[in-house]
Amino acid sequence: MEKKAEIISIGNELLNGNTVNTNASYIARRFHENGMPVGWIQTVQDEAGAIQSALDLALKRSRIILVSGGLGPTHDDITRQVLADYFRGQLIFNEEIFQKIKKRFEKRGLPLPEINRTMALIPHNAEVIPNPLGTAPGMIFRRDTQLVFVMPGVPRELEAMIELTVIPRLREVCPECRVQTDIFRTTGITESAIYEKIAQQLSFFPQYEIAFLPKVTGVDLRVVRQDQEAQNHEIFEKFKNLLYNAVGEFIYTTQELELEAVLGNLLRGKKLTMAVAESITGGLLQDKLTAVPGSSEYFLGGVVAYSNTSKIKLLGVSQKSLEEYGAVSEQVAKEMAVGVREKFSSHIGLSTTGIAGPTGATTAKPVGLVYIGLAYQTDLVVRTFQLGVDRLMNKPRAAQAGVELVRRMIAGLPYE
Amino acid sequence: MEKKAEIISIGNELLNGNTVNTNASYIARRFHENGMPVGWIQTVQDEAGAIQSALDLALKRSRIILVSGGLGPTHDDITRQVLADYFRGQLIFNEEIFQKIKKRFEKRGLPLPEINRTMALIPHNAEVIPNPLGTAPGMIFRRDTQLVFVMPGVPRELEAMIELTVIPRLREVCPECRVQTDIFRTTGITESAIYEKIAQQLSFFPQYEIAFLPKVTGVDLRVVRQDQEAQNHEIFEKFKNLLYNAVGEFIYTTQELELEAVLGNLLRGKKLTMAVAESITGGLLQDKLTAVPGSSEYFLGGVVAYSNTSKIKLLGVSQKSLEEYGAVSEQVAKEMAVGVREKFSSHIGLSTTGIAGPTGATTAKPVGLVYIGLAYQTDLVVRTFQLGVDRLMNKPRAAQAGVELVRRMIAGLPYE
Repeated sequence: MEKKAEIISIGNELLNGNTVNTNASYIARRFHENGMPVGWIQTVQDEAGAIQSALDLALKRSRIILVSGGLGPTHDDITRQVLADYFRGQLIFNEEIFQKIKKRFEKRGLPLPEINRTMALIPHNAEVIPNPLGTAPGMIFRRDTQLVFVMPGVPRELEAMIELTVIPRLREVCPECRVQTDIFRTTGITESAIYEKIAQQLSFFPQYEIAFLPKVTGVDLRVVRQDQEAQNHEIFEKFKNLLYNAVGEFIYTTQELELEAVLGNLLRGKKLTMAVAESITGGLLQDKLTAVPGSSEYFLGGVVAYSNTSKIKLLGVSQKSLEEYGAVSEQVAKEMAVGVREKFSSHIGLSTTGIAGPTGATTAKPVGLVYIGLAYQTDLVVRTFQLGVDRLMNKPRAAQAGVELVRRMIAGLPYE
Repeated sequence: MEKKAEIISIGNELLNGNTVNTNASYIARRFHENGMPVGWIQTVQDEAGAIQSALDLALKRSRIILVSGGLGPTHDDITRQVLADYFRGQLIFNEEIFQKIKKRFEKRGLPLPEINRTMALIPHNAEVIPNPLGTAPGMIFRRDTQLVFVMPGVPRELEAMIELTVIPRLREVCPECRVQTDIFRTTGITESAIYEKIAQQLSFFPQYEIAFLPKVTGVDLRVVRQDQEAQNHEIFEKFKNLLYNAVGEFIYTTQELELEAVLGNLLRGKKLTMAVAESITGGLLQDKLTAVPGSSEYFLGGVVAYSNTSKIKLLGVSQKSLEEYGAVSEQVAKEMAVGVREKFSSHIGLSTTGIAGPTGATTAKPVGLVYIGLAYQTDLVVRTFQLGVDRLMNKPRAAQAGVELVRRMIAGLPYE
């Protein structure tokens, strides 16, 4: 038996395309990070024969099997019965679990439908996985050294059970499986540019599994180190030095944090406030900033100035600059940044103007041209970007570039 | 052989959780809509043995098999060779395909790496699937009545090949598989409320497959009608009447359109403009509006007023109202809507204020309390919502409620 895990996802909604199987990638990532890689994922219907065949196959090749979906109370939810039959377990009513389910309904002021009693039926030979966020408990079956974890398909319930029960059990079963995972989140640099800068030296770290994960707003590097040797601390320090020497200014965090949260911590630390004047980003930049809890401490507000009139009236942009240079220009970006800082009496003023597309382009100003202005103390800078042709990509890219410009300035990095 | 399709997704990135398998759900949805439901999805590694076993299993049970991933030019991309071997095909260099790949590189001003020649190798017994958006072509293998489609894993390339080649071929192979799919998108009403209003009469339409797809911003109803009888036009008219009588005012479109695009069409039709004053939604509402191409025709801009000072200074909210009622109040929502309309000289002024959470709540004003104000001509209304406790859900829900309030008003529906 290989040291591999296997996922069996049960649910018609996965097979008719109504639901994307995010559970499988969550489990796969967490298992990979814990040194028990997933070798196969099977997705099958809520149908006894299909579930049995999937189990037959998985038990032939995988040490750990994770079954999810079909544990709810409706007639479609057959997983509990099918698994009990498969492992020759007798369903026994579990009073303790039933009381927990009952309490959950009472707390929400709802009557308990009779049908929900079925969720308290547990096979006599299964161990219960508590469900801290929902009603249907999970189960663990054992066959020699193989373990079969059965969980509901509701993502937040499944995720809680993975963290609270499954991963700790994995550690017990396989103490040698402990691995080290690190993340380095970058923005403002492409995947291939990072790769070029570090490629030659990567050969010194053959046991590091390095994944480049490009997103619209930047590239994450995920580094997984499986064995003892790869986990050597000094060697990892060397790797980090290599990485920081090559692309350190683009790394905004080594935690699971968004860029705007990193900026928020910097602003809070320096007791600075900011305001934003948006044209091309159309509200998205402020939406990002305000997605961070507590952002009202440092974010005072801003203006979305789509029309020229609003640029003049609300931000104090001069009519002359609009006529002479156009709304998408370095000069107007400057005046927007200065204007919004003044209106909101903030320390920092940030602005965006550009051609989002698909319309609005000229020969001199193509779709994707973006100016980002930043006013702070006596500094007034504008950075120019040439993004792509897709409106829905240009907005998030320009918004990220705006947040990053402020982060660089406050972090003391080159930003002009 | 059942009238079933099967997906084989190939790729280590799917098994270590770096990538969510959205390709599988795309294919599954399109196949379901075209009357050839997907019965199984297998996800396997970029490894010859694993791919062969998956094919063995799929060919035993499925009429159509869709293989995706591993067709690129790098050493990990073994799908082409493995499939050729499996179907005993000899790889032959295809000059025409090579020229297309070359042109694609030339267009982007890039030299063609030698390794990319492998993508022009096609098994002699496979049919080519053109790739309009990328370099790696797809392939079709045939075994008696079974078809095996092989496609790259890049989502936009795969989607284009599904639409341009795979679905049309499916129609040829199975003309009786044609099905009818309709969508009804709702907002402002829960899944269970819709269900309650139509449940009793749903039994008159036993052949309709009706899926309720709840999202943060509303519930979509997807209706799939498989056979001739279910596709009867008059019966469907009866179904639509039932639906519209029960919940018609909540249905904002029967197309694949977002609410803000529907509102945009209404505003454009009536030559109306709008401006937005946001507090709780923090820029998201304006971000939604400006995600629609051409929105600058009717959306003039707005203000994100997080601080009291900005509410006073930029929107003309009175100090007295802020002191007397608080920033989260009906009165301030009204003044924000009126103020932003005035500042931007728009026909319509829309405002949001509320407690997003996790902080800021009081006994009288819990997390999730939201006021939405609307000023148009002599009308000035405020609607009150009690949303949930999750900041990241409250913002999109409040933004959607704001857009919906304007849609209802312009569409002549009850909105107070």
